Amino acid sequence: MPAPDGSIASSTVNISGVHYRTIWPTATGSVRVIDQSRLPFEFATVDLETLEEAASAIRSMVVRGAPLIGATAAYGLALALRQDASDARLEEAARALQATRPTAHNLTWALARMRRALEPVPVSERAAAASREAARICDADAEQCRSIGRNGFELIRRCAESCGRPVSILTHCNAGWLACVDWGTALSPVYLAHDAGVEVHVWVDETRPRNQGAALTAFELAAHGVPHTVIADNLGGHLMQRGRVDMVIVGSDRTTAAGDVCNKVGTYLKALAARDNEVPFYAALPSSTIDWSLDRGADIPIEERPAAELTHVTGRTSSGAMQTVRVVPETSPALNLAFDVTPARLVTALITERGVCAASRAGLQSLYPDRPDSRPLASAAPSDSATP
Amino acid sequence: MPAPDGSIASSTVNISGVHYRTIWPTATGSVRVIDQSRLPFEFATVDLETLEEAASAIRSMVVRGAPLIGATAAYGLALALRQDASDARLEEAARALQATRPTAHNLTWALARMRRALEPVPVSERAAAASREAARICDADAEQCRSIGRNGFELIRRCAESCGRPVSILTHCNAGWLACVDWGTALSPVYLAHDAGVEVHVWVDETRPRNQGAALTAFELAAHGVPHTVIADNLGGHLMQRGRVDMVIVGSDRTTAAGDVCNKVGTYLKALAARDNEVPFYAALPSSTIDWSLDRGADIPIEERPAAELTHVTGRTSSGAMQTVRVVPETSPALNLAFDVTPARLVTALITERGVCAASRAGLQSLYPDRPDSRPLASAAPSDSATP
Repeated sequence: MPAPDGSIASSTVNISGVHYRTIWPTATGSVRVIDQSRLPFEFATVDLETLEEAASAIRSMVVRGAPLIGATAAYGLALALRQDASDARLEEAARALQATRPTAHNLTWALARMRRALEPVPVSERAAAASREAARICDADAEQCRSIGRNGFELIRRCAESCGRPVSILTHCNAGWLACVDWGTALSPVYLAHDAGVEVHVWVDETRPRNQGAALTAFELAAHGVPHTVIADNLGGHLMQRGRVDMVIVGSDRTTAAGDVCNKVGTYLKALAARDNEVPFYAALPSSTIDWSLDRGADIPIEERPAAELTHVTGRTSSGAMQTVRVVPETSPALNLAFDVTPARLVTALITERGVCAASRAGLQSLYPDRPDSRPLASAAPSDSATP
Repeated sequence: MPAPDGSIASSTVNISGVHYRTIWPTATGSVRVIDQSRLPFEFATVDLETLEEAASAIRSMVVRGAPLIGATAAYGLALALRQDASDARLEEAARALQATRPTAHNLTWALARMRRALEPVPVSERAAAASREAARICDADAEQCRSIGRNGFELIRRCAESCGRPVSILTHCNAGWLACVDWGTALSPVYLAHDAGVEVHVWVDETRPRNQGAALTAFELAAHGVPHTVIADNLGGHLMQRGRVDMVIVGSDRTTAAGDVCNKVGTYLKALAARDNEVPFYAALPSSTIDWSLDRGADIPIEERPAAELTHVTGRTSSGAMQTVRVVPETSPALNLAFDVTPARLVTALITERGVCAASRAGLQSLYPDRPDSRPLASAAPSDSATP
């Protein structure tokens, strides 16, 4: 895979000495992704050959993270057009991919960009054009994440100068290399700071129910050599009360035009604690995460996922086998909503590829006067409709 | 076991038709407790024969919950005096029990009460007197929890009248029957409301890392037939934003004279969300939980427990066997602090056995003008001293 060529760092995460992206095309036309459902105990890749396999990989969270969902959807569309590149197939494939997950805006954004690029192309050339456009989306995402890293790095560097000790950063869920094509959003500044010799320590929220923090963020940070400590999602507030967190950086699955941040459930609780303890709270995101059509965070559909993700836990036994165990008694129902919305008033600033801005309409407009538009498609995925 | 004789409800939780307390003396002089480390999948009891066994049961959380820790310590002192009831043994046993866990005030309170009662008693009569005093502590705890239930019930009843639908109550950790001798603190009002025909639904926080919500609160509520839903600790804030929580009721492991509430880690985050969404936040506690010697919640020692409680999860496999699995990679350290402090300013009111009062010095003094004193002993248990 192409290694980043920047001057601050030479690569993000290396697995056994090899630098990977999270998604790339193979010589046979399939798309290879890291199977994130098997991390942290097994590093394996899986090849996606069809639209259905790409959609399933997104739905089952073999791939996850807003930017990577967008990138996978783009390649999924390319796979769909390999046999039939008609207008009808393009429309049908985009709808199928759009329905995989309802919350991450990058999915909508990537599909709209693909359609804008492909609709003018003759049917006979669409499949090849789709692969090229998906690759461009991936390259652009990696470059944007790199820029997010540079912009966020300045915040960490200034904090290190003023506090005179390692900067303690709390993050929730996984918004690192694995959530994107490369570098990450929330973790990109952390990698750049670490590589530049700025001492950092990351508090890694476990992130129930799917444990993306314990499984993915901890894995990434360990692979890159960044000092970190895994904590229960419940602990961050206490650590902030005791002055042990210098800043919070999280990713975003969808950000409204007014700066509300929809991210993995529990993010809102950390933002409240940050505000209560005067700890800066940042959300790091590429502009593909911004939903310019939405003003109110409350209007973002919140995905309901299977209760089994909460009632069961998968891990490794002492003998090395992977095992799933039930932790909630059969007699108790469970509800698994995957996201929440942090109102803009609790967000100190947004870190984007164009710079750092206030989490507000004015802040976003100052960075994006051109306001990239997207063409949303209807979503058919389930959202927050369960009743107690 | 003696069944409560009140008019609102006839019992709390029945296991296979039998009403249990969580701790009781056997005919042979040992003390029997429910082994809470095996719930929710196995209901078993264990007999404590010695001081060491009682101390170990507290330390390893075979028994847990502030009131039950106090009751077990009282019986542990009685067990210690069976062979040797000298002043030196009394002193030594009290110190050993005090060192088991640092945060719950009921431990200090029960040991001080036992010593006040036993020191004037001739050595030859102390063992019998200790058993009687421990039984009185248990009876008083059950009665106090019953009174907490009656006082909290009024809050639920009024809420039901004003909202005209089932009252949705969020609770964190387990502050039910299993945390006490009987009835519970936070759940006692819930049981009384349910039994009185007031429709309630409980959001049960899973409560990582030891899952006391998923394992114990869910088990209790299911056994009593109270409608409930298990949720990730991360979800409560979102549910409050969406108007799906009418009140929060939690227990307390130590409450300062100024009304700060130390409880299972993560409680503070729920209190912040409750305040942000104008949801009433109550802590329910017997006066044995109040540390009149402390004004500042920040001075309460916060217990650090083994990281393995976070890095590993125990549950039941599909074949019915209990299995422990690792969920955090070996390359990542973890920090497990068990409690946090919710400042009084975030607590709507305290529910005690004497009534409901403001979470403030004036509020507590209005209910406790006599201010029961305790005589603290030095603690040797570890507390929040880890560094990143």
